[in-house]
Amino acid sequence: MIPRPRETRSPPMPTIVVDVMPKAELLDPQGKAVTGSLDRLGHGRFENVRIGKRIEMTVDGEVTDEVLAEAKKVANDVLSNSVIEDVVSIEVVE
Amino acid sequence: MIPRPRETRSPPMPTIVVDVMPKAELLDPQGKAVTGSLDRLGHGRFENVRIGKRIEMTVDGEVTDEVLAEAKKVANDVLSNSVIEDVVSIEVVE
Repeated sequence: MIPRPRETRSPPMPTIVVDVMPKAELLDPQGKAVTGSLDRLGHGRFENVRIGKRIEMTVDGEVTDEVLAEAKKVANDVLSNSVIEDVVSIEVVE
Repeated sequence: MIPRPRETRSPPMPTIVVDVMPKAELLDPQGKAVTGSLDRLGHGRFENVRIGKRIEMTVDGEVTDEVLAEAKKVANDVLSNSVIEDVVSIEVVE
């Protein structure tokens, strides 16, 4: 984990992190291009690059079970396209 | 953590996950658009949406300190644009 300068806001709001990846069975042309670039740059030991999204959002209030359920719904219905993507994780930080 | 169907490959290769986010001090127009959409859809409790990248890559071989150092270099030099993005985490899974 690389330390990142924190924004100074008060009070601190909980953040929900949603990770979305292209489905395993689908081609990922962007990832394929990066895999090729890494190989040409001498980093051929890194393979099968796949590029997804990391979405951070703050929550106004406490993260209750109900809020988490709403976040899951939002992750599946708004933040990802279930035809081509999987929501691989939803976590609450701080 | 939502379970995801695993690819069946043998032997299993370690995966490095690199998370890249737009710098905190920069506007994220895509995230702003999503924040607005969520609000209009009745999910206004989720705010300050920021959209970054999650990059997964497999490693051919063991993840030694040297490989991890190379992954950091690749994350900073190839997978992210340090003018507008921060590498927020690099982790090895399985």
